[in-house]
Amino acid sequence: MTPTLELAFELIRRPSVTPDDEGCQALMMERLAAAGFSNEALRFGEVDNFWSRRGSEGPLVCFAGHTDVVPTGPEKNWHNPPFEPAIIDGMLHGRGAADMKGSLAAFLVATENFVKKHPDHKGSIAYLITSDEEGPAKNGTVKVVETLQARNEKIDMCIVGEPSSTSLVGDTVKNGRRGSLGCVLTVKGKQGHVAYPHLAKNPVHLAAPALAELAAEQWDQGNDFFPATSFQISNINAGTGATNVIPGDCEVVFNFRFSTEVTADILQQRSEAILDKHGFDYDIEWNLSGQPFLTDRGPLVEAAVDAIKAVTGRDTELSTAGGTSDGRFIAPTGAQVLELGPCNATIHQVNEHVSADDLNTLTTIYERMLEQLLAND
Amino acid sequence: MTPTLELAFELIRRPSVTPDDEGCQALMMERLAAAGFSNEALRFGEVDNFWSRRGSEGPLVCFAGHTDVVPTGPEKNWHNPPFEPAIIDGMLHGRGAADMKGSLAAFLVATENFVKKHPDHKGSIAYLITSDEEGPAKNGTVKVVETLQARNEKIDMCIVGEPSSTSLVGDTVKNGRRGSLGCVLTVKGKQGHVAYPHLAKNPVHLAAPALAELAAEQWDQGNDFFPATSFQISNINAGTGATNVIPGDCEVVFNFRFSTEVTADILQQRSEAILDKHGFDYDIEWNLSGQPFLTDRGPLVEAAVDAIKAVTGRDTELSTAGGTSDGRFIAPTGAQVLELGPCNATIHQVNEHVSADDLNTLTTIYERMLEQLLAND
Repeated sequence: MTPTLELAFELIRRPSVTPDDEGCQALMMERLAAAGFSNEALRFGEVDNFWSRRGSEGPLVCFAGHTDVVPTGPEKNWHNPPFEPAIIDGMLHGRGAADMKGSLAAFLVATENFVKKHPDHKGSIAYLITSDEEGPAKNGTVKVVETLQARNEKIDMCIVGEPSSTSLVGDTVKNGRRGSLGCVLTVKGKQGHVAYPHLAKNPVHLAAPALAELAAEQWDQGNDFFPATSFQISNINAGTGATNVIPGDCEVVFNFRFSTEVTADILQQRSEAILDKHGFDYDIEWNLSGQPFLTDRGPLVEAAVDAIKAVTGRDTELSTAGGTSDGRFIAPTGAQVLELGPCNATIHQVNEHVSADDLNTLTTIYERMLEQLLAND
Repeated sequence: MTPTLELAFELIRRPSVTPDDEGCQALMMERLAAAGFSNEALRFGEVDNFWSRRGSEGPLVCFAGHTDVVPTGPEKNWHNPPFEPAIIDGMLHGRGAADMKGSLAAFLVATENFVKKHPDHKGSIAYLITSDEEGPAKNGTVKVVETLQARNEKIDMCIVGEPSSTSLVGDTVKNGRRGSLGCVLTVKGKQGHVAYPHLAKNPVHLAAPALAELAAEQWDQGNDFFPATSFQISNINAGTGATNVIPGDCEVVFNFRFSTEVTADILQQRSEAILDKHGFDYDIEWNLSGQPFLTDRGPLVEAAVDAIKAVTGRDTELSTAGGTSDGRFIAPTGAQVLELGPCNATIHQVNEHVSADDLNTLTTIYERMLEQLLAND
């Protein structure tokens, strides 16, 4: 058992389902204090968070992550109890093994190793840890970032421990994420009997050509880092169940995942222009859940690419695919943000597991990144 | 109180909510037996029906109707208890006053009057009465018609007592009805995460242009008796409620009200041709709930037009608008079918009521129709 796996075991044993932290952060802060960090517990509402920093100069390299995990689902479906970590056939099993207690352990051991070798490193190292990444994400990273901004404490580079790898550790890092813009559209018709259509106005008939046009629209072409912006209807509902009633309105829920080639404002304007063209009454409610961000090639990306190549021999792929992460809250401060973690094949599933060797490899990668970014030559 | 109103009172006092008859039919059969009719109770499932006939020759003129009524809704919203008939300001109040116990009373008193004056009338008079017109309509008129057809007993002319009038009694008779063809369409996509649209297939995006085309299609131009065929989507549903999931399929329920210029087969073929053109997978389930029918000018229509003119001075309008009625089950046997009854302004509503004078007028109209059709000169 390596120090990384031992710490991962200790974290997994704590059943920290969102928003409960169950002592994970206290354990991390104890280790960080021993390594010369100053800890600052930041509880907002029912959510535990902490900020920890070693050094007072720039550049500030931050590890960001979360101690909370998603629920287990039916425990009887787990081969091994979800909060009793075990290594089986080389795989570390347990809820959070891949998302992201394994990364937290790798972060911490890498930091300890680096600090031991370089007690007088350049710049600063920090930890931004929340227990509300898998939940509403209202009292977690976003609030800590607000606290830092209020006192002008600036993160220069941030490594988020989200499981970014696809089939081999380090094969993919996320150097950005698409934006996410949600919408609830209510097309307003006039209810009536199907036998008297001239007395009614069918909102589904009104909506259909507009939805067809929205679905066919090319919003952008994407760019080197982002696929083209995607529009998807997730829900549509109209009608009472009765087969002889023309419904009074039709509710449509849709979502944009958008690149840096457009903005949320532009998408709203273009969508509403299409709707207006069709000349019906509607209510519309927009919800911007994440701005897109992109960390172009630069010191942080280079450090990750070089470390992965040196440790694994792999040429990593820079990707912006997939869902949102807490990186969306940190990137707008101007920080370079990169997600690098183990393979994500079993995250959020029963029998979540991750290669034990990969966590050790990840520890070495993180340590090499610190070397490249903060070691005094 | 005229005999028609007295009988209407007796029928309304019986709370015969579908499928319960509550003795309405026994009362009618007793009166008909006294007027020389042979009664035949025909109970199917939980539904009471009866067939009653006076005479054995043709032509056979039949009164068709129903003793069942729709539920009252909240009784506290009624000014007068729904099953305690009362005449208030010249209006007969009570559930079924207009739909259609008033017509049943007018039928019966008209028949009694006619038979008294013409005991040796030509042809035959019959009654086809059900207590399942407002409900599923599975064990009512359709089953009685099957029974008659099985023994080659043929209705030549049929007066359905549905409240056909709009603002003045006799201003409108229905000489046909549009057909009704229902459909449940399931457009099949592939469920997935909105962040990975290339791994999914959005059934709402597939359906929208096809639905737009179906809604815009001109199915026919109607004709002298029928408005143009109408297509209406009554329900559309896709999505689980989650805003980040592309749904696996989209269910659309629609309905045609169609004229005699098309057939159900043609509408199915044309609809499916439009769907096929859009190149997606779908399941489709059709339900023909009524063929259209039309009773052109002829002895029955002339008898109604003449009687209304003679009794009220009005030129009646022949109409095929509105919902379906049990006439759809009788017309396919080759019978001339016509709907003639009181004003329909309050049917199915709370405080259902109808002009008491109109029911007396209707009695005279029905009696004159029998005179014109069956009196020996």
